Amino acid sequence: MEYSPLFWPIEFKGTKISILDETVLPHKLVYIDAHTYQDACDAIRQMKTRAVGQVLLVMYTFLLVEEQNAGNPDIKGIFKNVADSINASRPTLPFKVLTDMVLSWVEEGKDIKKSIYGFLEMLKQKRVGQARLAAEMLENGDNILTHCNISGLMPLIGHFCKEMNKEVKFFVTETRPYFQGLRLTAWELEKAGLDTTIICDSMVAQVMHERKVSKIIVGADHLAQNGDIANKIGTYQIAILAKHFSIPMYVICPPPSRLKSGSEIKIEIRPDHEVLKINGEWISSTDAKAYYPAFDVTPAELITKYIYL
Amino acid sequence: MEYSPLFWPIEFKGTKISILDETVLPHKLVYIDAHTYQDACDAIRQMKTRAVGQVLLVMYTFLLVEEQNAGNPDIKGIFKNVADSINASRPTLPFKVLTDMVLSWVEEGKDIKKSIYGFLEMLKQKRVGQARLAAEMLENGDNILTHCNISGLMPLIGHFCKEMNKEVKFFVTETRPYFQGLRLTAWELEKAGLDTTIICDSMVAQVMHERKVSKIIVGADHLAQNGDIANKIGTYQIAILAKHFSIPMYVICPPPSRLKSGSEIKIEIRPDHEVLKINGEWISSTDAKAYYPAFDVTPAELITKYIYL
Repeated sequence: MEYSPLFWPIEFKGTKISILDETVLPHKLVYIDAHTYQDACDAIRQMKTRAVGQVLLVMYTFLLVEEQNAGNPDIKGIFKNVADSINASRPTLPFKVLTDMVLSWVEEGKDIKKSIYGFLEMLKQKRVGQARLAAEMLENGDNILTHCNISGLMPLIGHFCKEMNKEVKFFVTETRPYFQGLRLTAWELEKAGLDTTIICDSMVAQVMHERKVSKIIVGADHLAQNGDIANKIGTYQIAILAKHFSIPMYVICPPPSRLKSGSEIKIEIRPDHEVLKINGEWISSTDAKAYYPAFDVTPAELITKYIYL
Repeated sequence: MEYSPLFWPIEFKGTKISILDETVLPHKLVYIDAHTYQDACDAIRQMKTRAVGQVLLVMYTFLLVEEQNAGNPDIKGIFKNVADSINASRPTLPFKVLTDMVLSWVEEGKDIKKSIYGFLEMLKQKRVGQARLAAEMLENGDNILTHCNISGLMPLIGHFCKEMNKEVKFFVTETRPYFQGLRLTAWELEKAGLDTTIICDSMVAQVMHERKVSKIIVGADHLAQNGDIANKIGTYQIAILAKHFSIPMYVICPPPSRLKSGSEIKIEIRPDHEVLKINGEWISSTDAKAYYPAFDVTPAELITKYIYL
């Protein structure tokens, strides 16, 4: 089995970090380089990578900084600085959980390289385990609707379903404004030979009404203590519609953050030209105004099952 | 008060019909010509015009054919032929209600020109009346969410609200895949000096959750006898979400067709490249597959009020 390039979109190359540029997919499979922690933060802000790519990038950034500052007595101060920059790069993903973890390793005098590689190996195994668990929860003949992109997990779920002799098909929302569903998820599912149909975000109720989908599987960028999740804008309404049509809603999620509930999760508001322009061209009139919350919070009561990391 | 160009997007010019090409708005305000009834049917199929433009185009097409066949003893047969072509052009709008009406005028020996002009004058007055009625139903401070485009009625509603000293603001879904909300409604509202914010179709639940919208107003392409409506894909899920958030859902609609319920309305399925390409460019991979139902049916129980023509 071959992993999707999105399953592990970041690699550490000793003196630099290689980042799969998700903004130009599916037309080009291009990797860009980050030579400094500032480069890495820029890549996050510009959405060159997202989801699990952000987690990998954070960990590899500390590896890079460790390499670049070998023997520096103020490594703690340097790491603190890097952690602050990362935490400030985008608000909704709980970067602080990751950066605090690394800072605690430094504080405890642990071997940073070993700790990071150990963490990443565990992450990989857990993610494969999540995909297997999701596949186990599906039935032969299921049609799965997904939204945005779960970094290579959907084709992996399809792979495990095949192993389990379950035939499943996929519906993917295009996921405006960045089209991650259309550009990333549909692309990686097709590459893996899985039956995939793209719909616009406006067509969710209609495909549910037509009973074209039998289960929902989405990811989550943030899980609060009470089970509320933050995920790509559009997830919340899919969950409300799933409830209306009595379709189970499964969420593949990271470990919970320290926040008590979803109402404490800060929703990132991005510049409105990201809605109004496509490939640099205005689709609206140039003086139009838009509102672009990049995430929304789905309350726990709309979620049927969590698939924990 | 100036009408939006979309309020009356078709004009009859004696030997041809002038059609506002809605597919290139807001960048260009271009009118194309139809010299034959086949040209008119092509314009409908290619979505050069839609909604009330289709109604006007049907009526002006009969006027054109009448001019082109003055004195022809087989005018009934010719009209029948034209009616068949129009009825077959797109499935969801009840063209047959219109074409049957014109055929009945021929049958009854009525003056076709007078009948058509009389019908159009009445249509104009009724549409202005609908906008005034909608404005009367709104309250000072309302934030109205709309979807797709109601052919110049939204700026007219804003105009009447101003006359009534009611301040209202507008939220417009972009309305994928053709962006009628972003390209047409937001454009005509801004032109009329009304406060307008575009959102993606995926952001409806979030703006409702944030209490940014207080009422929904949409149009309808088809009203069945039982109150079910067909409208642009995405309307159905907005109605479900409005119910979830207890937000009133108003529908500006045409007279009912002969169909008993929404389940009898034929939903047009359009080619999937219309989802996968934007301005002729593939946004997905070129071998991707999509599903594109162009309309959906909103059941009567989700509709708070009808504003009849």
